[in-house]
Amino acid sequence: MQRFVPAFPNRLSGLTINSTRLWDTIHTSCQWGAAHRYGKNLTDTGMARLALSDDDSKVRAWFVSETKKLGCDVTIDNMGNIFALRKGKNGGPMTAIGSHLDTQPRGGRYDGILGVVAGLEALRTIHENGYETNYDVGIVNWTNEEGARFPKSMHASGVWAGVTPLEEAWNLADIMNPSITTKAELQRHGYLGELTCSSASYPLAAHFELHIEQGPILEGSNKKVGIVSGAQAYRWLTVTVDGRDAHTGTTPFNARKDPLLAAAKMVVHSNELAKERGALASTGVFKLPMGSSTNTLPAQVIFTLDIRHPSHGVVKEIYSKCIEGFNKIAMEDGKGVDVTIEVETDSPEIKFHPDCREAIRKAANGVVGEDGSMDIMSGAGHDSVYTSRICPTGMIFVQCKDGVSHHPTEYCSPEDCSIGAQTILDAVINYDKLRVEQGM
Amino acid sequence: MQRFVPAFPNRLSGLTINSTRLWDTIHTSCQWGAAHRYGKNLTDTGMARLALSDDDSKVRAWFVSETKKLGCDVTIDNMGNIFALRKGKNGGPMTAIGSHLDTQPRGGRYDGILGVVAGLEALRTIHENGYETNYDVGIVNWTNEEGARFPKSMHASGVWAGVTPLEEAWNLADIMNPSITTKAELQRHGYLGELTCSSASYPLAAHFELHIEQGPILEGSNKKVGIVSGAQAYRWLTVTVDGRDAHTGTTPFNARKDPLLAAAKMVVHSNELAKERGALASTGVFKLPMGSSTNTLPAQVIFTLDIRHPSHGVVKEIYSKCIEGFNKIAMEDGKGVDVTIEVETDSPEIKFHPDCREAIRKAANGVVGEDGSMDIMSGAGHDSVYTSRICPTGMIFVQCKDGVSHHPTEYCSPEDCSIGAQTILDAVINYDKLRVEQGM
Repeated sequence: MQRFVPAFPNRLSGLTINSTRLWDTIHTSCQWGAAHRYGKNLTDTGMARLALSDDDSKVRAWFVSETKKLGCDVTIDNMGNIFALRKGKNGGPMTAIGSHLDTQPRGGRYDGILGVVAGLEALRTIHENGYETNYDVGIVNWTNEEGARFPKSMHASGVWAGVTPLEEAWNLADIMNPSITTKAELQRHGYLGELTCSSASYPLAAHFELHIEQGPILEGSNKKVGIVSGAQAYRWLTVTVDGRDAHTGTTPFNARKDPLLAAAKMVVHSNELAKERGALASTGVFKLPMGSSTNTLPAQVIFTLDIRHPSHGVVKEIYSKCIEGFNKIAMEDGKGVDVTIEVETDSPEIKFHPDCREAIRKAANGVVGEDGSMDIMSGAGHDSVYTSRICPTGMIFVQCKDGVSHHPTEYCSPEDCSIGAQTILDAVINYDKLRVEQGM
Repeated sequence: MQRFVPAFPNRLSGLTINSTRLWDTIHTSCQWGAAHRYGKNLTDTGMARLALSDDDSKVRAWFVSETKKLGCDVTIDNMGNIFALRKGKNGGPMTAIGSHLDTQPRGGRYDGILGVVAGLEALRTIHENGYETNYDVGIVNWTNEEGARFPKSMHASGVWAGVTPLEEAWNLADIMNPSITTKAELQRHGYLGELTCSSASYPLAAHFELHIEQGPILEGSNKKVGIVSGAQAYRWLTVTVDGRDAHTGTTPFNARKDPLLAAAKMVVHSNELAKERGALASTGVFKLPMGSSTNTLPAQVIFTLDIRHPSHGVVKEIYSKCIEGFNKIAMEDGKGVDVTIEVETDSPEIKFHPDCREAIRKAANGVVGEDGSMDIMSGAGHDSVYTSRICPTGMIFVQCKDGVSHHPTEYCSPEDCSIGAQTILDAVINYDKLRVEQGM
């Protein structure tokens, strides 16, 4: 395999990451949870490393050991977040590079993983060059960012930021096995730390995150680095449609209470509403929890709806129209169905901190030149969305092939991984210098 | 509880069933598999007695024991069908009263069960009156009529009628556990008889079946007995929609291959097509087998479609329009999806035998008077649909409350159970006499 070894002549930090080591480390870390092979190369697999699974536990142990080799102080809080801190001249709080090591059940090798491993590569580079930062710098591995196993995205950064109460987060159960709670799994793996998970207990001076774009915009615009201005607003709904199970051959349409037909109409309708407003509305989960069969209508359908738009106002508008439309659909067929809509998550659009964006912009100019970067909005939620509520936060996007993510074939080239890692290293060094200027 | 003790003064057979014993026996048999309580009375539950489950095995043993008490010869074939024969003056083949003791996972206490227990009550009445039939009469309990556990309706009567090859029927696996085959479960419970399942090995002179209507027509028409003229045609499809899993926040609509949106549109479209032609089209199963989450689109959706109409021609027409429409829908959104349609079952409409219908009509006139019955079409499939391919067959419907079936609250009143049992007894006696006249 050919490796990309960049020169980065204009990098601001004076430090150069090791591209080969970065690439090797990403895929070394993927030995735990590799799954869904799609090609012949060793790295032609996706990942299935659900939060607090045995594989996640193993990669965490590896991560702790690697950061300790660099002289880091490792702290684990009671949501399992791992903070690896490398001392600077004037102490803390640290400027953090954070992301997550957990993946979707059919995820890829870069989403989250690139962010944490780039942090490790940045610290390794600082360490081996004997570079002394003004303030502490470090890495955070946030627990259960994906929300795939315990169904709450940015689960632990939400607790850290004071958005989600600790008890609620601890009690959140495995979506496949309601008897297993987050707390039980933290305990089982030894990641229920003594420190309370909160920004007061473990403050950060700033949070930087490198992530694949998970969309096609950078690639389509031929830009190497996305300077993320913020994240779009979104609202997650669980829609429960209750009807009555009935025989498909003997129950005339006018005698039915068919939740599946109604739910199908609601999915189609939400899609139409989103299209009209240039927003997104998506259903990823559609369950018939009580069982049914080819000749028995289900009694209940539960589906999720994820509405997104750069403006929270538009999200709320589509939500209102969905409620109105769903209630109408509920009455349309047969004897009607009952519909209950629950808001699971509501996240207004957020703007990242100008100081962080500026630190990233300068870094990107050094690495890929002014023409190589662009401002971009994040379509997805990230731990940075929660940290931005508490401390200055910035994000860097790099290209992923065809915009594909949350899929085994998700791919970020060695070149793009390196560009991202070098940019975040330089951004953190820039920010560390800014802290001295600003006396932070 | 108040019991209905009818007089049936004009019954043709001269025999009177024991209504209280019938009602008690129905609910005695429901001790195995009772589930889904909805009220306070002992009998206010539904049933979950899947074919060849432990509960089904227990009720089978009870059934064999009860028929042996009446002096019946019991034969079990290698699909587990149980034939209980009571000798007549001139021997066989027997005039059979048949139905099934298995239920849906969320089924009721009457679908199938009433038919078998009414057969038992008919034989008990014949037996205790010392009545001698001209030819053998008896009861059949057909295996896995529901097709809920092993996904093929009228599974074993289909083998008996030569429609389904034995090996195929044996290899059919539990829908929840693909490692368990029908044959393995027959063997485990001791119901893999030595006799080959076929109409040649165990011929029947005629097949009569009493069943709840499973629809609202009798109740709406204020008629007590339905003389079933035949069964509507139906076709069962499995539709597989393949797309690509993708992040819901970062994948624009035009970059998606969203199988769930496409499948939802297909469900809605098939409903519209059926409505236009006065037919039925229903989806009971809708699965996302590869997993997904609120923020990940699924890669695949599999759903069933059940198309029904009294005319096979109309069923085929709707099927063709579905294929055309589904292929169009597959191209409508984003980068499109792939759709595969498989026909699982195809059943043309059938007409029951005039001799059986006449025997039932005369019986019904005696029990409920000429105004008390009506001709009716069966919306559902029944074992009688398959027996009608081989021997003269007739069916009797009685009311079920609100037309509800395949549901725990399915209910047939003591009065309606008794009317049905008396009518089928008299119909069988009528037919037994007809056989002498016709030298059958």
